[in-house]
Amino acid sequence: MRALRYHGNKDVRLDDVPEPECKPGWIKLKNGFTGICGTDLHEYATGPSWVPTTPHSLTGATLPCTLGHEFSGTIVEVGEGVSGFRVGQKATIEPCIADATCAECKEGFPAMCGNLGVVGFSGWDGGGGMAEYICLPPKNVHVVPDSMSLEVAALTEPLTVPWRAIKASGFKAGQSVLVIGAGPIGLMTILCLQAFGATNILVSDPSEGRLELARKLGAHHVFDPRKDDVERGCKDLCDGRGPHVVFECAGVQNSLNTAIAAVRKGGTILGLALWETKAVFDPNHIVLRQIKYMGILPYVPGDFQEVIRAIAEGRIRQPERLISAKIPVEDVVSKGFEALLHNKSDTIKVLVQPVTSG
Amino acid sequence: MRALRYHGNKDVRLDDVPEPECKPGWIKLKNGFTGICGTDLHEYATGPSWVPTTPHSLTGATLPCTLGHEFSGTIVEVGEGVSGFRVGQKATIEPCIADATCAECKEGFPAMCGNLGVVGFSGWDGGGGMAEYICLPPKNVHVVPDSMSLEVAALTEPLTVPWRAIKASGFKAGQSVLVIGAGPIGLMTILCLQAFGATNILVSDPSEGRLELARKLGAHHVFDPRKDDVERGCKDLCDGRGPHVVFECAGVQNSLNTAIAAVRKGGTILGLALWETKAVFDPNHIVLRQIKYMGILPYVPGDFQEVIRAIAEGRIRQPERLISAKIPVEDVVSKGFEALLHNKSDTIKVLVQPVTSG
Repeated sequence: MRALRYHGNKDVRLDDVPEPECKPGWIKLKNGFTGICGTDLHEYATGPSWVPTTPHSLTGATLPCTLGHEFSGTIVEVGEGVSGFRVGQKATIEPCIADATCAECKEGFPAMCGNLGVVGFSGWDGGGGMAEYICLPPKNVHVVPDSMSLEVAALTEPLTVPWRAIKASGFKAGQSVLVIGAGPIGLMTILCLQAFGATNILVSDPSEGRLELARKLGAHHVFDPRKDDVERGCKDLCDGRGPHVVFECAGVQNSLNTAIAAVRKGGTILGLALWETKAVFDPNHIVLRQIKYMGILPYVPGDFQEVIRAIAEGRIRQPERLISAKIPVEDVVSKGFEALLHNKSDTIKVLVQPVTSG
Repeated sequence: MRALRYHGNKDVRLDDVPEPECKPGWIKLKNGFTGICGTDLHEYATGPSWVPTTPHSLTGATLPCTLGHEFSGTIVEVGEGVSGFRVGQKATIEPCIADATCAECKEGFPAMCGNLGVVGFSGWDGGGGMAEYICLPPKNVHVVPDSMSLEVAALTEPLTVPWRAIKASGFKAGQSVLVIGAGPIGLMTILCLQAFGATNILVSDPSEGRLELARKLGAHHVFDPRKDDVERGCKDLCDGRGPHVVFECAGVQNSLNTAIAAVRKGGTILGLALWETKAVFDPNHIVLRQIKYMGILPYVPGDFQEVIRAIAEGRIRQPERLISAKIPVEDVVSKGFEALLHNKSDTIKVLVQPVTSG
């Protein structure tokens, strides 16, 4: 079968690989759509850092590996001894691979597992979403309702990131929030905040196109930091005090500065972005304004099910609005990675189809 | 009466000022002992920053002001209409001055009041602990048991800082902690942690004298970061994972580095120190290790009463062990400020006596 495999920095190839066989206890899926994530871009442009160069402790995976960890598929085979799944069901994939035995796993945080693997970087058989088929253990497969499209199902994984962040932040319906950075995660944060009852969502981003989309998705006020005084505007729109919670989804120095300056005294800043540089800050601003700055990780058990339900019930409204393109796997470099690296304003979530015929 | 007043940078004078009169609704105290705080040192060496150069919005105080915000005294007059206090009672002072009307005050965080004042920097009549007498509203006066010495009572205010930090951190008895910086606040953190049932208290400080005191006060393990691998040592002593909570009481870059490296995944760092510089960090360490970094402020209603009770009941054990000197007010520069600025190893908490006779 065809598989888009990562061989190293800027070296991604459409390889012919053996189709995986469904072992007892496993499930085989025909992959539907795979979203391109910022982490895929980092790996393409500056990796390898997620794809292991020596065999992974749990899966044995090593370069080259099939990319794709935000994906959906259709069950084509249910391995011996697996119950609760049937052929033909649509599903979305939870890509987290953890040892289930360490303290972090036992405490309910598999993403902190010291042996963490991720399907699409270090999956079993080096498998990922950008191949025709994949075999996975049942706990990595979440069935979605028949009424949900495979496109939308592929958005579940990135939606769990802001979903978890909002839960971890202690946000309560009626509180004010600022989302810094209206890329895919920032925009998904808006969608999830609505599901949690937010009625005052402020968004800051230097791209007009993204701000327009943010407004359409439900942002109540948007700022362009190149023109607007974001701190002042946030105070004016949040009882003169600033937002209760800031979601920092940009990962650059200016966005951290804005987060610390804009959040209200006693407020919380959630770091959702990964950074390419170190950051500078004045700790006195944290101490004297009693701010909480938190990093969060997804894959907490239960979150996938909650997000699937929220989409199905329309509480996360029409996430398909974030899909800016659907491309065949052979175009992933030109219309996927390079487009996302060079045209951030118009490209939000690009979905890749590993099989375009049949 | 005599009052040690701050006139400006390195300009502290023993002035003769009018003795304050006890108005109806107020309480007059003869001051007992006053601790010298790091903030006093900063104000002396690099101020004015806390003492207002224009009249304070709530008290009207402006340069020069009497110093001293960690202090005790004896009630000598109870103003008309004040109940629940009587002449002769010992008391400790809560120096927080807040407007009680703003949102932060109403939410129970007077230290975040936009009009915040502090007795000893911007108090009523420019008063503070380093004068013979002071008049205060009853809510700033907490009676202590007769059995508590005025020396110990003067330690209440700084003890509320780690007390609040421990409560805010979510620390639970049995969890492991690292205290970075064994100055007065770090050492008081040890004493308070014992009251909260800590059984694995690790301490890091580059001064042998302070580490010895930390050990005597109850630290279970101490590290000298000039010689020891603190991160490695913390892992070894905390289930291979590092401490649950780190109290950063030093306010320097190396201590922040150690805090982030040593805290366990999912752990919490409390910032208790004020900084003289900006800090650099890698936000990915916060995000990927799911760390919480929090600033905290004292003066949450109820904390003073809890600390007084904990001292009285011996849960905060013998805090007088932190007192390294008692000096008359006329020696405050030579034996107080300059000693603390130049001999950190041997000098912990210096108490000042505004009246040495009578």
